[in-house]
Amino acid sequence: MQLMEEKILTEGKVLPGGILKVGSFLNQQIDTAFLKEMGVEIARLFQDAGVTKVLTIESSGIAIAAAAGMELGVPMVFAKKHKSSNVDGSTYTSVVHSYTHNTDYTIVVSSDYLCKGDVVLLVDDFLANGKALIGLCDLVEQAGAKLAGAAVAIEKGFQGGGDTLRAQGVRVESLAIIESMNDVSIAFRPQN
Amino acid sequence: MQLMEEKILTEGKVLPGGILKVGSFLNQQIDTAFLKEMGVEIARLFQDAGVTKVLTIESSGIAIAAAAGMELGVPMVFAKKHKSSNVDGSTYTSVVHSYTHNTDYTIVVSSDYLCKGDVVLLVDDFLANGKALIGLCDLVEQAGAKLAGAAVAIEKGFQGGGDTLRAQGVRVESLAIIESMNDVSIAFRPQN
Repeated sequence: MQLMEEKILTEGKVLPGGILKVGSFLNQQIDTAFLKEMGVEIARLFQDAGVTKVLTIESSGIAIAAAAGMELGVPMVFAKKHKSSNVDGSTYTSVVHSYTHNTDYTIVVSSDYLCKGDVVLLVDDFLANGKALIGLCDLVEQAGAKLAGAAVAIEKGFQGGGDTLRAQGVRVESLAIIESMNDVSIAFRPQN
Repeated sequence: MQLMEEKILTEGKVLPGGILKVGSFLNQQIDTAFLKEMGVEIARLFQDAGVTKVLTIESSGIAIAAAAGMELGVPMVFAKKHKSSNVDGSTYTSVVHSYTHNTDYTIVVSSDYLCKGDVVLLVDDFLANGKALIGLCDLVEQAGAKLAGAAVAIEKGFQGGGDTLRAQGVRVESLAIIESMNDVSIAFRPQN
């Protein structure tokens, strides 16, 4: 998605520790016109996949997943990062390791909202080592649902998580794939 | 909003402890067609308020705030519940008490995304005692921005937070106001 690469180049900022800050348009402030465009593009990529549900993890994936769900005309579900008082009854859970915060956290979703007949599209803002998506795949598998694939706003290609998932047969579509970045330049992987 | 009251009556579930579970359409699974309708209604209510930015708190307010921002044609900003590695530089913070979890938490937003010239519409999924909205008002005030008001999906009128804010001169619009609820019935406050 040409527009995503342009936004990263004009508004993104590389912070120490390999963090790409895109807070001005994707994550903490969200450019809502651009958000709609992301939803349209994700829906275009997966229009023939028979998606019945979009699944993400709180909280930075929620807006993109909602936009994708709107365009695909299906519900969006977000896994919570801990069991809260609003998730009662039967649940699916998985443990995810966060490299950013160097901690493990549990993701949880009510079994009411992921069902055997579902065809699930995973959506997230970032894909780095892929641990969050692997956790979501685990929830889909526990539910006995089918995985349509994953749509990600920005993939850090150099961290390898996307390619590992692709090698395992998961369809991963990223609106931009960063091959390398430092404080002076950002290089993207060419995509069709 | 007639449709909101109908959704609450048909899909909502009152849990012990005064919790209204609306996980099937608003909070953890989101009905994205209905989400769009909420955005349209919030934009209609505040169309003449000169809103330049929508502000919410992660994570259950994000989808509604994004939908409202899309329809108003303005960016959406979400305050984070703790300072993360992706919020660098100057910030505004406020402490909010959660009655649900009986803890205090800090909300934080980068000062890059709330500015003096902004006219800010607060958006959230629930309004009970109003502590979260008061925290957001505090961030708006710290930024020297103007408050357009608050739009909420579901107000628990019997907890008084909405009326306290209205008495202080804040324009609060709720898509449904619950006056009383128990496990057999839910009663709404009539609205024009």
